[in-house]
Amino acid sequence: MNVNGFYFAGIHSGIKDNASRDLGLIYAPDGAACAAAFTVNRFKASHILLDVPRLRRGRCRAVLVNSGNANACTGKEGLEDARRLTAVLARELEISAQDVLMASTGLIGQRLPVKKIEKRIPVLIRSLSRLRVEHFAEAIMTTDHFMKIREVEISSLGVKILGLAKGAGMIHPHMSTATMLAFLLTDAEATHLDLRSVIDAVVDETFNSISVDGQMSTNDSFFVLANGKSGVKVSTGKEMALFQSAVKDVCASLAELIVRDGEGATCVIEVEVRGARTRVDAQNVARTIATSALVKTAFHGGEENWGRIVQALGTTRASFRPEKVKIYVNGRLYFSEGKGRSTLRRKRREKHRVVIDLAAGAASARFLTSDLSEQYVRINAEHLT
Amino acid sequence: MNVNGFYFAGIHSGIKDNASRDLGLIYAPDGAACAAAFTVNRFKASHILLDVPRLRRGRCRAVLVNSGNANACTGKEGLEDARRLTAVLARELEISAQDVLMASTGLIGQRLPVKKIEKRIPVLIRSLSRLRVEHFAEAIMTTDHFMKIREVEISSLGVKILGLAKGAGMIHPHMSTATMLAFLLTDAEATHLDLRSVIDAVVDETFNSISVDGQMSTNDSFFVLANGKSGVKVSTGKEMALFQSAVKDVCASLAELIVRDGEGATCVIEVEVRGARTRVDAQNVARTIATSALVKTAFHGGEENWGRIVQALGTTRASFRPEKVKIYVNGRLYFSEGKGRSTLRRKRREKHRVVIDLAAGAASARFLTSDLSEQYVRINAEHLT
Repeated sequence: MNVNGFYFAGIHSGIKDNASRDLGLIYAPDGAACAAAFTVNRFKASHILLDVPRLRRGRCRAVLVNSGNANACTGKEGLEDARRLTAVLARELEISAQDVLMASTGLIGQRLPVKKIEKRIPVLIRSLSRLRVEHFAEAIMTTDHFMKIREVEISSLGVKILGLAKGAGMIHPHMSTATMLAFLLTDAEATHLDLRSVIDAVVDETFNSISVDGQMSTNDSFFVLANGKSGVKVSTGKEMALFQSAVKDVCASLAELIVRDGEGATCVIEVEVRGARTRVDAQNVARTIATSALVKTAFHGGEENWGRIVQALGTTRASFRPEKVKIYVNGRLYFSEGKGRSTLRRKRREKHRVVIDLAAGAASARFLTSDLSEQYVRINAEHLT
Repeated sequence: MNVNGFYFAGIHSGIKDNASRDLGLIYAPDGAACAAAFTVNRFKASHILLDVPRLRRGRCRAVLVNSGNANACTGKEGLEDARRLTAVLARELEISAQDVLMASTGLIGQRLPVKKIEKRIPVLIRSLSRLRVEHFAEAIMTTDHFMKIREVEISSLGVKILGLAKGAGMIHPHMSTATMLAFLLTDAEATHLDLRSVIDAVVDETFNSISVDGQMSTNDSFFVLANGKSGVKVSTGKEMALFQSAVKDVCASLAELIVRDGEGATCVIEVEVRGARTRVDAQNVARTIATSALVKTAFHGGEENWGRIVQALGTTRASFRPEKVKIYVNGRLYFSEGKGRSTLRRKRREKHRVVIDLAAGAASARFLTSDLSEQYVRINAEHLT
């Protein structure tokens, strides 16, 4: 599937030591309305400092992305590096530098090899093609094992949405509109304000409801570009509802792919909290359980260790009465009336499902995480990431 | 060293499958003033529900402790089990059941084998001795590799303090005055209110400033017993200051032993935050960095990965200006003026030291944690703990 009007490239520029792709480009020659959401980490990568003012115009033509280097904690020099690379790209494309956004992912605290990258920009541009989605998807990978691409067509509207993401470690996004990077490209017609409200509507329940290791990155970024090539406006009414719903599906799907590819992950753990007094309570409980090292190691062993779930729940300040709480793991009731109900099962599964009923209200939340494995430790103890 | 007036026992009662000690007893025949601090986890172990009302009297004669079973999330039956065991012990010792406290540590959600334990109580009592401190210290161990015993004599006062603790996993105590268990026995003369204020004065900077895995237990408990055998009052003035300082030293030392024996731990990481606007800010930053999976795995690999420290710091809401922050690891300045200052060193050490200067005020905090290793994952994925 192709989304009309978007071109892709992904090449090796020399940022990574091996020969794999590390520089990607999305190009929309006729421009696109755009909006983005970035990490709320207070140390923000240089690309974010560059993009935020440029995004105020609400339109862009190109997004330059590098992997292998986060260009974070690199000071003014890091911001200058990003500015220079986007300027070189703009000059070669014969567009305004203000029309170029950037995103980076990789090791924190290293300067980008600007001269190396600059020299490769003409090659990057020459390789642009509507068909090279996978080159781009590969170029943004770091510790990822597979490309993360999802596409959907809203047939009743004739609108297409293409979603691309990367992320495996330092994953616990919290974006006020996440090192996960995600890009959503559509041929729908929308203003950047429309896109901003779509981002606000979907990000909380998708990218902001996942965690691999509880570590919020300095670089998390989510871009939405709409080039209007379908001629279908999605700014109001049924069209907006359909578009928003489709965007949410793509984001939820990409978010689950990120968790499934979490560093060292052997399974996905879904934590659903029901019966919370407030949505904040539900989110807080779901997040606390999903980020518990003891819960994550138990599931790594395939063990439905409800005692550790109770322990994690007990550290939250959510409204509940302990004797009213019910805990189910993979459909089995393990805890109610303040005590255990079943003997522990141990079974490895691709996906474990924890349901907690707080019996304190009607709010709910869902959080996805991966297990904590020896491999996670090896990846992060032995490598510079 | 012996503290006059305290007797100890530790035997195998059959709670643990192997033949190791799992039932311990501290006995003060003439009674002792006592106070305790317990976990703030909202699912509290049965022993805590039993002890809280009994502690109101401010005095006790015996503390019965079992390992291998947390007697937590066991409902009314669990509380009844604890009540029955302390009643049997009281009858055999010919004291009031109200004079007996209890503490448990081990797997959550299992009933205690009450009949087995009951039968062994006479043996436990017969083995009481002033010299069997190590039998007791062994009987309270779970995944611990070594006994945790510290003693100090305040020579100017002629007062002795003996500290005993256990704990290796599910360690992130937060006691309003830890499954860490700790016992402090002294021959000082003090009221239970004195002891309560000593606990309040020391627990925040000692047991509540450590973490192995960020998991607050349902069973964490810290008991202080003072039997007055020295005849030296420590309720006021210089005596109180000296006593409190000595208690703090013993607690800090036991707390560090718990971290050093943390599940899978190969090193200790000390995080010191300086220049914070408030103590709460300093504690929040120190705790956030000390519980970061990426920081802990980096130090497991011996890597001074300051980028991950910056990332973790950036997720806090503490008052600071990013460009003012300075970060040192093992004495080397890695980060200032918003950017990296040194190339990364990689060297395994017994203890790594992180210092963060927030340049926002005069408050400070210190937090101790262990590294995150493959062994931690194995212990918690493969065993029921």
